[in-house]
Amino acid sequence: MIILGFDPGIATVGFGVISSEGNVQRAIQYGVITTPSSIPLSMRLNDIYNDALTLIKSFKPDAIAIEELFFNTNHKTGISVAHGRGVLLLAGVQSAVPMFEYTPLQVKQAIAGYGQAQKKQVMEMVRRLLKLDAVPKPDDAADALAVALCHARCASSLLNDNGGNTACSTI
Amino acid sequence: MIILGFDPGIATVGFGVISSEGNVQRAIQYGVITTPSSIPLSMRLNDIYNDALTLIKSFKPDAIAIEELFFNTNHKTGISVAHGRGVLLLAGVQSAVPMFEYTPLQVKQAIAGYGQAQKKQVMEMVRRLLKLDAVPKPDDAADALAVALCHARCASSLLNDNGGNTACSTI
Repeated sequence: MIILGFDPGIATVGFGVISSEGNVQRAIQYGVITTPSSIPLSMRLNDIYNDALTLIKSFKPDAIAIEELFFNTNHKTGISVAHGRGVLLLAGVQSAVPMFEYTPLQVKQAIAGYGQAQKKQVMEMVRRLLKLDAVPKPDDAADALAVALCHARCASSLLNDNGGNTACSTI
Repeated sequence: MIILGFDPGIATVGFGVISSEGNVQRAIQYGVITTPSSIPLSMRLNDIYNDALTLIKSFKPDAIAIEELFFNTNHKTGISVAHGRGVLLLAGVQSAVPMFEYTPLQVKQAIAGYGQAQKKQVMEMVRRLLKLDAVPKPDDAADALAVALCHARCASSLLNDNGGNTACSTI
């Protein structure tokens, strides 16, 4: 199966496309969608939406995995990011691709084996699991690959459990 | 000019359509878009987006006015509302309608004359300004009419100031 992972944002949206067969995952493509702060928020959202649709059309993912949002102290940034995540979800549902969301804790647990893992450890595990020569750059792209890998593991355990595992949350 | 106001939300999005000529404003239509909590967030966003597009096509507004978001203590609700606001902005920009945002303080000042006005006073002023028999219901629809009226006043003062007033923030 093909999985498209998104790390939501407004200035930078990370994306990562992987193939997953059993326990073997490979990176197909990864990178970032960027929007300039010099244009209105509505136009930035339109750029993100259009680029997400293009990615979905190009790679025809069987599933989209996206990070769940938690707000820190910077509410203003959080509001913008949530706007951006809204149009990513819209692009996914309009393309009829099943969508799944994971908390940062779930991603860390799936990739590094424990939820308190450091970011650096998670990045290194992404490199190893995908058999890449170097840690993917920029960080947002690596984060998107991590959430895609998280879904690959969740979906794979679902198959193994014959559907009894309900850890993959649709959104 | 025709102005479409939105009070953003996820379970309930208020809308209000008014006509504005100089200092005279009239209500054309108002109401709410509602989405059930029983369906995934992505489908709720799709419903909001489609209903917003239908409103824009039906009433052909010259401007869209939308409330700016501020997060209170309930971050989870705030995140959902920001997702919903994101797809409203997308529907607006895709329809090439100029969009403007106003803080709750700006709306209160424009409608009731001072920023500390009670909600009830603002609602009553909406009724009077639009010459309605009763305060519009539900509250979300009245809030949407209030932000539309706020833009009418801002746009009108812009004309009076020969473009020198920069209080109408595009988004």
